Amino acid sequence: MGLTAEDQMVQSMPDASPTKWHLAHTTWFFETFLLKPHLPGYRLFHENFTYLFNSYYKQVGSHPNRAFRGLFSRPSLEEVHAYRKYVDRHMARLMENSGEDVAKLVMLGLNHEQQHEELIVTDMKHALWSNPLRPPWKDNQPNAEASVPPLAWVDFDEGLYSIGYEGDEFSFDNETPRHQVFLNRYSLATRLITNGDYLEFMRDDGYSRPELWLSDGWDTLCAQRWNAPLYWEEREGQWNVFTVNGVQRVVMSEPVCHVSYYEADAFARWAGARLPLESEWEVAAAASKIEGNLLESGKLHRQPLAELASDSLVTRSSDRRIRQLFGDVWEWTSSPYTAYPGFAPAAGPLGEYNGKFMSGQMVLRGGSCATPQSHIRATYRNFFPPHARWQFMGIRLAK
Amino acid sequence: MGLTAEDQMVQSMPDASPTKWHLAHTTWFFETFLLKPHLPGYRLFHENFTYLFNSYYKQVGSHPNRAFRGLFSRPSLEEVHAYRKYVDRHMARLMENSGEDVAKLVMLGLNHEQQHEELIVTDMKHALWSNPLRPPWKDNQPNAEASVPPLAWVDFDEGLYSIGYEGDEFSFDNETPRHQVFLNRYSLATRLITNGDYLEFMRDDGYSRPELWLSDGWDTLCAQRWNAPLYWEEREGQWNVFTVNGVQRVVMSEPVCHVSYYEADAFARWAGARLPLESEWEVAAAASKIEGNLLESGKLHRQPLAELASDSLVTRSSDRRIRQLFGDVWEWTSSPYTAYPGFAPAAGPLGEYNGKFMSGQMVLRGGSCATPQSHIRATYRNFFPPHARWQFMGIRLAK
Amino acid sequence: MGLTAEDQMVQSMPDASPTKWHLAHTTWFFETFLLKPHLPGYRLFHENFTYLFNSYYKQVGSHPNRAFRGLFSRPSLEEVHAYRKYVDRHMARLMENSGEDVAKLVMLGLNHEQQHEELIVTDMKHALWSNPLRPPWKDNQPNAEASVPPLAWVDFDEGLYSIGYEGDEFSFDNETPRHQVFLNRYSLATRLITNGDYLEFMRDDGYSRPELWLSDGWDTLCAQRWNAPLYWEEREGQWNVFTVNGVQRVVMSEPVCHVSYYEADAFARWAGARLPLESEWEVAAAASKIEGNLLESGKLHRQPLAELASDSLVTRSSDRRIRQLFGDVWEWTSSPYTAYPGFAPAAGPLGEYNGKFMSGQMVLRGGSCATPQSHIRATYRNFFPPHARWQFMGIRLAK
Amino acid sequence: MGLTAEDQMVQSMPDASPTKWHLAHTTWFFETFLLKPHLPGYRLFHENFTYLFNSYYKQVGSHPNRAFRGLFSRPSLEEVHAYRKYVDRHMARLMENSGEDVAKLVMLGLNHEQQHEELIVTDMKHALWSNPLRPPWKDNQPNAEASVPPLAWVDFDEGLYSIGYEGDEFSFDNETPRHQVFLNRYSLATRLITNGDYLEFMRDDGYSRPELWLSDGWDTLCAQRWNAPLYWEEREGQWNVFTVNGVQRVVMSEPVCHVSYYEADAFARWAGARLPLESEWEVAAAASKIEGNLLESGKLHRQPLAELASDSLVTRSSDRRIRQLFGDVWEWTSSPYTAYPGFAPAAGPLGEYNGKFMSGQMVLRGGSCATPQSHIRATYRNFFPPHARWQFMGIRLAK
Repeated sequence: MGLTAEDQMVQSMPDASPTKWHLAHTTWFFETFLLKPHLPGYRLFHENFTYLFNSYYKQVGSHPNRAFRGLFSRPSLEEVHAYRKYVDRHMARLMENSGEDVAKLVMLGLNHEQQHEELIVTDMKHALWSNPLRPPWKDNQPNAEASVPPLAWVDFDEGLYSIGYEGDEFSFDNETPRHQVFLNRYSLATRLITNGDYLEFMRDDGYSRPELWLSDGWDTLCAQRWNAPLYWEEREGQWNVFTVNGVQRVVMSEPVCHVSYYEADAFARWAGARLPLESEWEVAAAASKIEGNLLESGKLHRQPLAELASDSLVTRSSDRRIRQLFGDVWEWTSSPYTAYPGFAPAAGPLGEYNGKFMSGQMVLRGGSCATPQSHIRATYRNFFPPHARWQFMGIRLAK
Repeated sequence: MGLTAEDQMVQSMPDASPTKWHLAHTTWFFETFLLKPHLPGYRLFHENFTYLFNSYYKQVGSHPNRAFRGLFSRPSLEEVHAYRKYVDRHMARLMENSGEDVAKLVMLGLNHEQQHEELIVTDMKHALWSNPLRPPWKDNQPNAEASVPPLAWVDFDEGLYSIGYEGDEFSFDNETPRHQVFLNRYSLATRLITNGDYLEFMRDDGYSRPELWLSDGWDTLCAQRWNAPLYWEEREGQWNVFTVNGVQRVVMSEPVCHVSYYEADAFARWAGARLPLESEWEVAAAASKIEGNLLESGKLHRQPLAELASDSLVTRSSDRRIRQLFGDVWEWTSSPYTAYPGFAPAAGPLGEYNGKFMSGQMVLRGGSCATPQSHIRATYRNFFPPHARWQFMGIRLAK
Repeated sequence: MGLTAEDQMVQSMPDASPTKWHLAHTTWFFETFLLKPHLPGYRLFHENFTYLFNSYYKQVGSHPNRAFRGLFSRPSLEEVHAYRKYVDRHMARLMENSGEDVAKLVMLGLNHEQQHEELIVTDMKHALWSNPLRPPWKDNQPNAEASVPPLAWVDFDEGLYSIGYEGDEFSFDNETPRHQVFLNRYSLATRLITNGDYLEFMRDDGYSRPELWLSDGWDTLCAQRWNAPLYWEEREGQWNVFTVNGVQRVVMSEPVCHVSYYEADAFARWAGARLPLESEWEVAAAASKIEGNLLESGKLHRQPLAELASDSLVTRSSDRRIRQLFGDVWEWTSSPYTAYPGFAPAAGPLGEYNGKFMSGQMVLRGGSCATPQSHIRATYRNFFPPHARWQFMGIRLAK
Repeated sequence: MGLTAEDQMVQSMPDASPTKWHLAHTTWFFETFLLKPHLPGYRLFHENFTYLFNSYYKQVGSHPNRAFRGLFSRPSLEEVHAYRKYVDRHMARLMENSGEDVAKLVMLGLNHEQQHEELIVTDMKHALWSNPLRPPWKDNQPNAEASVPPLAWVDFDEGLYSIGYEGDEFSFDNETPRHQVFLNRYSLATRLITNGDYLEFMRDDGYSRPELWLSDGWDTLCAQRWNAPLYWEEREGQWNVFTVNGVQRVVMSEPVCHVSYYEADAFARWAGARLPLESEWEVAAAASKIEGNLLESGKLHRQPLAELASDSLVTRSSDRRIRQLFGDVWEWTSSPYTAYPGFAPAAGPLGEYNGKFMSGQMVLRGGSCATPQSHIRATYRNFFPPHARWQFMGIRLAK
């Protein structure tokens, strides 16, 4: 990836983690939840790693303060790689002779690792941005400006719908159980909000008008002196943005990204609309059959942000079809992250995976350009606090 | 009330306000939203009060930092009383010749004042407790221990229900519009959790077992060193509690009170149950016809906390009826405070009344012993952050 | 004094205390250190006051966090007055039959009270300023502009000098023992720096040039956004200042006041001079015989700040005489507050009076317009942290 | 040194810096103050390094927040080494043809680098300790327990002495000018306080008795929960200490180290003594001719802390001679760090080197086991805030 051992050390804020930590922690996950309980005679790679790379599983034992992950020069990156190989080797042995229980845990471990793959991207982007040199990580060409279809609406009828995961593939516990929800008639925007759209909000004094903002949002704006999305900076009257490819001009036709829930909500209010409920989003996504099928068959061409990919775009067959649902930016919903009716977290420490975070966070849907493609599905519930901006987060309107 | 001008100055934490401020601010509300726009020729009582007693209405103008309300020795309590008389007099004049629009705003102003009546109680209780002398405010006798009926469950069928306010009486905008929700089959506990119940949780190491807690809750517990509800203190192996009547023994048969959402949620998990959704609560409350009728006819005898009243108790006709729904303690629900589908806040500054707080708070239902009785209704949505404990907040289980 | 019970409740910052607290604490001092140990059979006025009004004497027992003094609505002001009368009455009895030991402690108690008299003025000024109404406390007329003599210098020879208190009158332990210091040849300015002088510094970008500032000073300036002395505010291009007589125009001929050590030091650097050592100041003050004699005979007419007095000025007999040494503003010296060689604090809790604060503070000399006149002397050492501004603090240059 | 590029990235607290940063910053110093102004045609190694590696020289321009130095994965360690070579090469060219002015600056640059050599040791020790693995850096054998001579006193007469640097060798500006001070008769302890001595203080409840502590010290102790020197930890009733050689038993005969000024002061008070003035220390050190001569001739064998050296000890010829003055631990004095009379910092940005820190810090004398030997001299003034503990700081008593 072109990242040095030094790059993989950086923790630029408590919310983000060093790449090396992500590599070690995902390995720890397999060691702790698979090898230790299920592989007879397994010997820990290093006695202290059980503590050192525990993120937050209180039932496994205590763990370091998460703000200090950047202080661990030891183990070295090389040792972490050795740790990974050691665990991989033992995982191969374990999987030779194991049943369904283990297979399910392996699937969880792999999905856990996929989540951290995405975090490696978002955290490293933030780490590099925190360096005054603003070093680029990759050297993709920026997207050129493209034409943007007018924002249109797709309507959905009032009625009882079912949401949540049901089936035999992998899903996280928080996507279940599938259950019914009653929705009023609603409409969803056919496309994401672009940088150009968002700049209109900024130029209309969006960041100076408290009546557009939630109270907590306004307080955060004032305290953090927000006046644009994260990574944007004005130079000589021109808006630039830091990307993994370095600092570039803002491309107006791209989806706006790195905005908080507060900003998304304020934008929606300014636009005379609102953010969708997560149930509204899921119903629309499930209904979006063509994209759904493409996703399953692996043929989906996502509309990428320039910074992470530069290949082809979706053919825009129709302005009335809902576009950009999967793999562009995570879409803020107006739904706080809570348990589905009947939700039951796993027994034991793995029950801490999702359930204990059901407080103070908002649900995001859809997956971003940094999300592994096979990790994206209509029922997936991502969640972050309303002030978070460093994930690839954007805006779709509803009304 | 037996409160001196000095007592009415105290602000014991930023969340609470001095009594004098409450008196002035509720007056300001009438002056700002009624007299100024609707009474021709009205002259402000004091030019600077528009600023000084604005709580958070950004569209009215700027306002002092809320943490500094306890610094305002001027105006004196006497001047604030004069302010109230002046505004009352002009309100009387306004109401002689005004139409429905004004009448609606008057109703809002009165309900606003009722909310602050309750806050005067909760904030003053906290203020007195903050004084190491722990002075009592009233001198009611504590309740004696009473027998507590076993905790039973009332079942509700799966189905589509309607919640939210609809009618001609007053309601806040956040109670509307009435709308349909689909509920799974559920059960609600017939009574509140008592101090005795809660003490079992404490004795079973409830405050030392992270697996029972939300992640944010556990962090708060550690940072604040919580080991009991607010106002509880152990002296020589005996739990006492500060009440408006001074420090008293904890009465085990009374509803547990002054617990945060985090504590309520942890208790429920420990008990193998959960907190109700606000919709589940409202459906049950609306169904609770007997109590409903009593409430309307003003004949409801609430089950009071000892500290604020000591009169008669509800006759316990049946253990299978849901008791203590109204006027004992606010009941934490598992529902974050969000907009009902179709919610539209009022235009102008009054739109800031409720809507802009729809972030980071949980809904409470039912009303407490400090809530004015006519202010209680089944559709009422109170809301506080999950760490708040100084309101009269308690626990009802669902499953 | 025209201060209501409500006024006397206000604590506008942790460094300042409510007037009522000052009244109670100085009474506590007599009760704790005189009556309790020396008056047989003395009964405490109130059991809990020993704790409640202890400021910081750890050897007496624990004490409330100083930031919470503004929360004590009880005891009421009336009760505090009763407390004072009760203690006064018993003090009278004690003094009838007591010896020199008690007499010395009485003297300490009186001087302690004098210190708090001054703090009542400074803390109340800050309290009133913290109220957006900016209410005046008194209604003296502001000083008119007066002519200011040019700043001249008085020279002192290199040599061994003695400083510190020696004699039979009262002094604090930190003024002793008298001891020798060697001083290089130095010069002291004949007058204090005026508002007019200071405005030149401000207009020469004094608050924007880090090279003029101590590192800690610059950090404080940035964090607190200082751009003028405390209480100054610019309105329409005109500098005003909040005084106990309300907001008034800055009088250019008056001594600049309410500046921190950092500001005094930066001003001196800008002016090509420095602040005096406390020993330099004391040597000069002791030599200043005329003023000294006047002070003793009670005939000294201090050059007052307008806000606290408006009577006559010193006749300016000579520009070469050092003026304004006593009773205008406390003069920052460049001497950190440390023990004199041979310093021995009193045994027991009274040893905590001065000695334990010999860290992180700077010495100020001379006394301000708020200092009781009999409390002023050449050897007196006042001390405050270098960022403090709410005392009446000003600048005299040396070189 | 056995430190990886990752090790050299760690910044374990804002006060400490990564090794890589130290390497780059000392190079920056030569580039900025020597090459840029004095080598015609010199081209910067990297445009942005002027900003990136500026520590605090405001007159050079702005600089990063010092807390973020650990985020700079770029430039890599390799690039920093290249930077050093590049600057070294140009320095060689510069020195071929330059005069005395440049020679003086070179000397300053070298002494600056020596200071950072010491900081590399102290900061890396802290960095490794911050890692829960507590990795050792070196593998020296711990010192064995040795016999400790009884603590005796050497007396000095009252009188006028001269302190400060005067001569032709290098000194920092803050050591000048040499000037006279008057000292009372005093005594200095012949040896440093040992771990064994300090443990007696701990066992006599030294950390629980507020009357022994400065007020700021007690507050710090409570806030930081100090109960032993930094790096000490109790395991099963045994005191261990983290050293650069890993965790080891505390050697009772070694000088106590890593104590703050507050702890040194409290220990002295407990012992019925005090800390020396810096002038007292310097007079004694200058009088200590034998050691002085040894130092100059390079024959001084320091009494080392086990962790950084394990070679021979000073022969203890006499108990009445003052030992361990140089190169064991920095010795806290009771003197705040202020300007000597007549002190004049250099013009321009280099004037910021020492002068602007003359606030809020205490002087330490003598040099530690981590100080380059040629950097040690009797007039040298080190300074740190009174709460600092991560330098090799210890205690010598005076009375």
